[in-house]
Amino acid sequence: MDLYSGYINRLIEELSALPGIGNKSAQRLAFYLVNQPEESVKRLANTMVEAKEKVRYCSCCCTLTDQEICPICSNPKRDHTTIMVVENSRDLAAYERTSKFNGVYHVLHGAISPMLGIGPSDIRLKELMQRLQGADVREVIIATNSSLEGETTAMYISKLIKPTGIKVTRIASGVPVGGDLEYIDEVTLLRALDGRVEL
Amino acid sequence: MDLYSGYINRLIEELSALPGIGNKSAQRLAFYLVNQPEESVKRLANTMVEAKEKVRYCSCCCTLTDQEICPICSNPKRDHTTIMVVENSRDLAAYERTSKFNGVYHVLHGAISPMLGIGPSDIRLKELMQRLQGADVREVIIATNSSLEGETTAMYISKLIKPTGIKVTRIASGVPVGGDLEYIDEVTLLRALDGRVEL
Repeated sequence: MDLYSGYINRLIEELSALPGIGNKSAQRLAFYLVNQPEESVKRLANTMVEAKEKVRYCSCCCTLTDQEICPICSNPKRDHTTIMVVENSRDLAAYERTSKFNGVYHVLHGAISPMLGIGPSDIRLKELMQRLQGADVREVIIATNSSLEGETTAMYISKLIKPTGIKVTRIASGVPVGGDLEYIDEVTLLRALDGRVEL
Repeated sequence: MDLYSGYINRLIEELSALPGIGNKSAQRLAFYLVNQPEESVKRLANTMVEAKEKVRYCSCCCTLTDQEICPICSNPKRDHTTIMVVENSRDLAAYERTSKFNGVYHVLHGAISPMLGIGPSDIRLKELMQRLQGADVREVIIATNSSLEGETTAMYISKLIKPTGIKVTRIASGVPVGGDLEYIDEVTLLRALDGRVEL
């Protein structure tokens, strides 16, 4: 489309490569940006590049941080004997918002997916196993998503860790709080039934 | 939230200021960006700044372009006596994709909205009126949106142009092609009825 300008077309193209941004959203964003004051566009551009340059993986739990060791791993008040394994830093943030989990995390940055060709060596599993060696870890809680990939990853990790004698648990799956049974899929309903607890 | 890194937080904040990007999307985008190779982040940042720097308004129709006069206004094969007035360059693009309109455009960059405090002087109306003076224009087709703001703008422009004797028309509003009457709102149904044409 040669309607606008080569510069806008290129911007639309690059924006639509971002996750969750389709062609229409990319157009809207591109027009928004060229209509903004130059300093705000430059500020956004700088923030992007700066974040990319400064942010790295925590050398302990692999979450994204701008320090060598992230604030959670370097906090002596956290329980370092309990490690929750999550798929990504957003999931870590979700559990942190509950402010009820006092253990530490391990961020895999993905899940095993034969469909997408993502194998165990493509996620931060080696780092987890290295971390478990020697350290005093009593429980590994697997909090990967309740999707096919998440479950596959959970099974794989549990098989890997079991021989070490460390306790491996999986977060419960069932009916979400406030969920109406009528609208919940059968697999979730069966999971909720299987996972029933005595009152 | 001090969970990630100040750099990521700042990036999330700036991204969520973009139109159509909520906090969750901004988080997803920010994590995506810091996980991308440095050169692709820099390329996106540069493209943004470059588009902002190079793109300007066509001195004739006010659309976004990187030339003094946009390709449509400088095309001698277009019918310069028919001007279609649109709210923004995306709407211009929508009509260009039909490849059936051979006239030229005028881009308002907005619509009159008393609710949002956008008055006639905040959109490119003065430029339209200046353009009509002296030039040989036979028809102005108002193709603003069929929203309250679009209709207000259409009424305002038509009142402004009528005294000059130039023909002012408005694009039809009615049932969209392929639309199922059952699901169409009453206002549209009444508009379609009012605008009925003889077969």
